[in-house]
Amino acid sequence: MSSDFYQKYTNFSEKELLSKIKSKMSAKRFQHVLAVADTAEELARRFDVDVNLARIAGLVHDYAKERPDKEMIALILELDLDSELTVFGNSIWHGILGSVLIERELGITNSQILQAVAVHTTGSPEMSLLDKIIYVADYIEPNRSFEGIETVREIAQKNLDEAVKYEIKHTLIHLIEKEVLIFPKSLETYNACVTKFG
Amino acid sequence: MSSDFYQKYTNFSEKELLSKIKSKMSAKRFQHVLAVADTAEELARRFDVDVNLARIAGLVHDYAKERPDKEMIALILELDLDSELTVFGNSIWHGILGSVLIERELGITNSQILQAVAVHTTGSPEMSLLDKIIYVADYIEPNRSFEGIETVREIAQKNLDEAVKYEIKHTLIHLIEKEVLIFPKSLETYNACVTKFG
Repeated sequence: MSSDFYQKYTNFSEKELLSKIKSKMSAKRFQHVLAVADTAEELARRFDVDVNLARIAGLVHDYAKERPDKEMIALILELDLDSELTVFGNSIWHGILGSVLIERELGITNSQILQAVAVHTTGSPEMSLLDKIIYVADYIEPNRSFEGIETVREIAQKNLDEAVKYEIKHTLIHLIEKEVLIFPKSLETYNACVTKFG
Repeated sequence: MSSDFYQKYTNFSEKELLSKIKSKMSAKRFQHVLAVADTAEELARRFDVDVNLARIAGLVHDYAKERPDKEMIALILELDLDSELTVFGNSIWHGILGSVLIERELGITNSQILQAVAVHTTGSPEMSLLDKIIYVADYIEPNRSFEGIETVREIAQKNLDEAVKYEIKHTLIHLIEKEVLIFPKSLETYNACVTKFG
């Protein structure tokens, strides 16, 4: 991809964009981000989605993951979002608010990219192919390791909807076992998955 | 308990009430209902809740469990409830609508009993002691058998909140493994449990 391409979707060249992303996170998370972009690109090729959109969405998906809580809570107030959101922490905020921050700070206005970032941790009852690709790529990129990952990687080669269903089911069970708060939209995603392809 | 007592809370004597309940369900479910009433009575004694309210709530909790779907859907429309409810089936309806039917058909107007029946399958973020007793009694009564039941029976001897948390966690995981739709209120119950005593 040429720098020109990046400039079609952001205010920056590829080098500038990567540098901006890298400056906002740990080295380990930056490796994850690059791996998600690669995995998203592969999935996009397989499922006939715009490879460039998938790559950029992968690169920016965790842009806000390491923001201080204070900054994120201020943003929730500024945007007049449901105050319920404040109890959920950055594991939820960084998707919804990340889409706002990548627009403001990286000049990305493409609505498909913004939506894929917004829903990448919770999924949504109505996911585009790009949304599904980022959601799944984040779960199966090569650095990830958990019981069953080979199963979901195989599923993702064949059926993106089944991979999303696998991911939301196992994510919910994992959160429940750890007694972590669950964002209502994650349940909506689950209910949509078991209704549509249950 | 004398018939007089029953007539304080219903239009019927104990014998009439039991006969009315029995006529609406299979023999197996009626055994379950009697066992829930006994377990609820024990828990009420332990946790200092009105034993008579617990017994009646236990007896009527599944009153609407075997109603035809058609009748329940008509009731959802008549009561102008959220049409989303129609997709969930009688495993959810029989609590919410059961509380309406036991008022109409059994003349029970005590709001504590009605609420305990309404929330007995999903729980709720704000449960009274009676709500918790019926919710837990339904799960642990002597006819129930599942992996871990001895653990939750022991927990219920000591801490009702912990028993509710155990039950909502394991119920959600069981539903997810079976790929069954989950009612949003069940998630609210879970989130309240892990927040309050997580």
